[in-house]
Amino acid sequence: MDIKQFKPRLKSNNQETVLKLVSLGGVGDVTKNMYVYEYGDDIVIIDCGIGFPDEAMLGIDLVIPDITYLRDKKHKIRGIVITHAHEDHIGGLPYIWPELQCPIYTQKLTAGLIRAKFAEHNLPRNKINTVNLDTKLRLGAFGVSFYKVSHSVPDSTGIVLDTPVGRVVHQADFKLDWTPVIPGEVTDVGKLATIGTQGVLLMLIDSLRVERSGYNLSERTIQPTFAKIESETKGKVLITTTSSNLTRIQQAANVAVETGRKLVLVGRSMENNFQVARDLGYLHIPSGLVIPMDEVKRYPDEKLLLVIAGSQGQPGSALSRVANDDHKQITLRQNDTVVFSADPIPSTESAQHALIDKLAKFGASVYYTALTDDLHVSGHAAAEELKVMINLAKPKYLMPIGATFRQMKVFSQMCQDLGYAADHILLSEDGQMIEATHQQVKLGGTVPASNIYVDGLGVGDVGSVVLRDRQVMAEEGIVLVIVPIDVRTSKAAGEPDIISRGFVFEKEAEGLLENAKKVVSQSLANHPNSVLDWRFTRRHIEEKLDEYFYRQTQRRPMILPVLVEV
Amino acid sequence: MDIKQFKPRLKSNNQETVLKLVSLGGVGDVTKNMYVYEYGDDIVIIDCGIGFPDEAMLGIDLVIPDITYLRDKKHKIRGIVITHAHEDHIGGLPYIWPELQCPIYTQKLTAGLIRAKFAEHNLPRNKINTVNLDTKLRLGAFGVSFYKVSHSVPDSTGIVLDTPVGRVVHQADFKLDWTPVIPGEVTDVGKLATIGTQGVLLMLIDSLRVERSGYNLSERTIQPTFAKIESETKGKVLITTTSSNLTRIQQAANVAVETGRKLVLVGRSMENNFQVARDLGYLHIPSGLVIPMDEVKRYPDEKLLLVIAGSQGQPGSALSRVANDDHKQITLRQNDTVVFSADPIPSTESAQHALIDKLAKFGASVYYTALTDDLHVSGHAAAEELKVMINLAKPKYLMPIGATFRQMKVFSQMCQDLGYAADHILLSEDGQMIEATHQQVKLGGTVPASNIYVDGLGVGDVGSVVLRDRQVMAEEGIVLVIVPIDVRTSKAAGEPDIISRGFVFEKEAEGLLENAKKVVSQSLANHPNSVLDWRFTRRHIEEKLDEYFYRQTQRRPMILPVLVEV
Repeated sequence: MDIKQFKPRLKSNNQETVLKLVSLGGVGDVTKNMYVYEYGDDIVIIDCGIGFPDEAMLGIDLVIPDITYLRDKKHKIRGIVITHAHEDHIGGLPYIWPELQCPIYTQKLTAGLIRAKFAEHNLPRNKINTVNLDTKLRLGAFGVSFYKVSHSVPDSTGIVLDTPVGRVVHQADFKLDWTPVIPGEVTDVGKLATIGTQGVLLMLIDSLRVERSGYNLSERTIQPTFAKIESETKGKVLITTTSSNLTRIQQAANVAVETGRKLVLVGRSMENNFQVARDLGYLHIPSGLVIPMDEVKRYPDEKLLLVIAGSQGQPGSALSRVANDDHKQITLRQNDTVVFSADPIPSTESAQHALIDKLAKFGASVYYTALTDDLHVSGHAAAEELKVMINLAKPKYLMPIGATFRQMKVFSQMCQDLGYAADHILLSEDGQMIEATHQQVKLGGTVPASNIYVDGLGVGDVGSVVLRDRQVMAEEGIVLVIVPIDVRTSKAAGEPDIISRGFVFEKEAEGLLENAKKVVSQSLANHPNSVLDWRFTRRHIEEKLDEYFYRQTQRRPMILPVLVEV
Repeated sequence: MDIKQFKPRLKSNNQETVLKLVSLGGVGDVTKNMYVYEYGDDIVIIDCGIGFPDEAMLGIDLVIPDITYLRDKKHKIRGIVITHAHEDHIGGLPYIWPELQCPIYTQKLTAGLIRAKFAEHNLPRNKINTVNLDTKLRLGAFGVSFYKVSHSVPDSTGIVLDTPVGRVVHQADFKLDWTPVIPGEVTDVGKLATIGTQGVLLMLIDSLRVERSGYNLSERTIQPTFAKIESETKGKVLITTTSSNLTRIQQAANVAVETGRKLVLVGRSMENNFQVARDLGYLHIPSGLVIPMDEVKRYPDEKLLLVIAGSQGQPGSALSRVANDDHKQITLRQNDTVVFSADPIPSTESAQHALIDKLAKFGASVYYTALTDDLHVSGHAAAEELKVMINLAKPKYLMPIGATFRQMKVFSQMCQDLGYAADHILLSEDGQMIEATHQQVKLGGTVPASNIYVDGLGVGDVGSVVLRDRQVMAEEGIVLVIVPIDVRTSKAAGEPDIISRGFVFEKEAEGLLENAKKVVSQSLANHPNSVLDWRFTRRHIEEKLDEYFYRQTQRRPMILPVLVEV
């Protein structure tokens, strides 16, 4: 094995510069991964993902990292290196890359999926560079090399950064799977061991599943479960999973081959990912196996196996439309079987449960993790797998990534049990600078790293004020108070008008709203001279109405007084 | 054992009347349990619970059953019989009982907790009747008797209804626990066996956990886990659980006794439930063990064990306030330990995770189910426990309750494996009538059984229109268009004004809103004659603005045009 350490270029004045590392997303918040490594005039970025909105982010489609920190440093950026093709590692590129315009480096499949994404967003693809596992990049002060890891998408890698202060191993999402479904997708523990013997200053490592003791089962355990369910199904088999989970799709395809069913990919993301992966040779699909959607009606149900998007119960997804009998080509029948081969994630659990219920009510057989074992294995390492990797890399310092704080604390305890001193485990958060020298790695200052919200076409135009307004209106509705003001006398010209939405059902609450008008009239009468002092009048009406409504209903709608000059 | 079957009163004309059973909540929706049994002129109701709002029920505090079906039948209601003291079985009483005013019958602890609830709502307590396990009630055509079951609150019961068409066993929430924490709280399988040998027409049974194979562990497995955690804690121990989980509170108290810590109940619901249960003799608490909140500061941290409300991360709950350093008497310190002794329920999982993260970040040790075994056991029977009960009662017909449809389907399959014909298992839903004669039990017609929303003081005044409005405003905000109209000319008198909330940040979107004004002006100019045709003008402005905003932002805010006559 030929692994040489890069000879890093040292500053000419021979004074050691500090390596700075900051996460703009991915530490303490699981998704939205983006890590900035900075040494002198050189910056290398690892990953550029999206995050998913939580319940408080009303109406938000997705979340991207805040690149404020990079805005005056664009000239320093030597490249973005991508670890693997999951949305929380590549999904931010279409929003962020246009501003950075730097080269992207990643393995073949990941590059292919990013190219497809850029094509969709009408972005140029000429800066997307395909590397392989032997590639050694020189990006300014950084040497960059790769090693293979198992994960739920092929071509996942660990990244080795050789820096002037020492070697950093950046181990994003991975697991150990010695019998992968797609041949060769085995974590290269030998290469990591070699890297480890050469000395590693710092290792960042995916700690999402540190709370799970032991090891993950092999992905290969899933296919027999699919086969068994298929053998009991008289009608169509529908298997739903995350559309990036190509190994799961391969196993579904294998069952289709064995049982003489035709394979149908349903859902745009499912079709796209399948196509790119197949074209690049990552899926092994006999010709004639896949039929296009518009041929589905030519086959009897018992000859069809569908792999369908929408495993989290997303509204509008292919499976949701099928469940609502709203899909053009696919009609669910009682003999059909639906298999959920994906665990719910906390924020979508209710939606997935509701979808399962709808399908069950319809009469189809439904299989899911709570009921059937071996329908899903995680793509993330459990505790014993983490310990293996740490013992191979033997870093001086460790930093958990891709995890919430509670998991980072468990990780820290685990590492202390392995013999690490507590101050050699860096519990960081987004925007927290890490400063590394040959001797020491420690926490530094902070940089901006908030959530940037994407809502429709708007990127960053929805902020905390807008979200707070949405929250209030979501909880209690809005009450609009229209006060006509006579411009000549500066006095109220007649009765105020009140309109509400999302507060009470107006037809049944006439008395409440009539009395509210009186409250407004009264408060205007009490301050006849200040009616044209807009701010005062407005605040006064808000206070009085808020008090009145709360007393009557114990609700606090948003109150929006509008003075109209007549 | 003295169990005689009641001799039911038959109708004088000797013609058999049908027994009607309808669930107004609890079938297909887990919570909000309320079952109406009707025979001729007599109605007996079992349970009257609340439900918890799902994500789509914005701003709703809780949900209660729809009693439309009962409104013209109040004179027939002979009583409400309550199975046990959980909110989803008793919580609806303060809202519904005032309208029904009928007697309530239940066991001692449940009666005590309902009395406390009625006192809080200023309701009379004189119709709350305490029964015991030997009580035989005659409620019109119905004979009512009870048998003890294990559950996570003491005094839980199964109910036996003797009706003119045969015996019905109504088995709400239960499990089998042969070593209960509170002595005597063992499911009385002997009594149920005797009931079974006398013939049971129909059994309703809690099927929430039918997907879980095997048996539950005993509740008793929890206390050693508490003890171990306590022994490793240098500061305060905070244990959080559902405030009705008295067995869990007893185990926390036992650990306090063994380790010489003082016990503190934190949170109103926790204090209330504890007080009632202790006064009635259900908790075994040595005198001097409990100290009131205002004495907490007189004891060192290592002498305190707190049982605290807020295990689901509810905002405003005691534990949330502690985590936010916003609790008057309790300050969290790094040596303290917080133990979550309650699994998250799907709709609160994110809130619980966020709370755990906040506590972990603070530096306290946090224990929870994902990390530590034996911190929670379910109160609901797993599959093998269900099979035991079914084999004891030997009903001709079975009906799963307290479960979602997917669980009901699994229950049906399980019963078919036990030898039941599929048509002897009634998969019902709220509002679905069940009709029973001596010979047969079958599905009948439907009655109203929607969700009645409670929001603040309002019961039922928030309906689907209001919720839809809240949903739109939550997702995309609201845009208000104020159009001044000259009453004399019926024409727009000047520029329209536009105000938005929750849509875009106005200061940054001036151009968008200025252009929107032009869109409104233009659409008014295009239809100069119809400005005073309110409906037309309004719809026209809505359409044009919707189109404009969607094109510009891909958002569809609520648009509210207001014409002001000047």
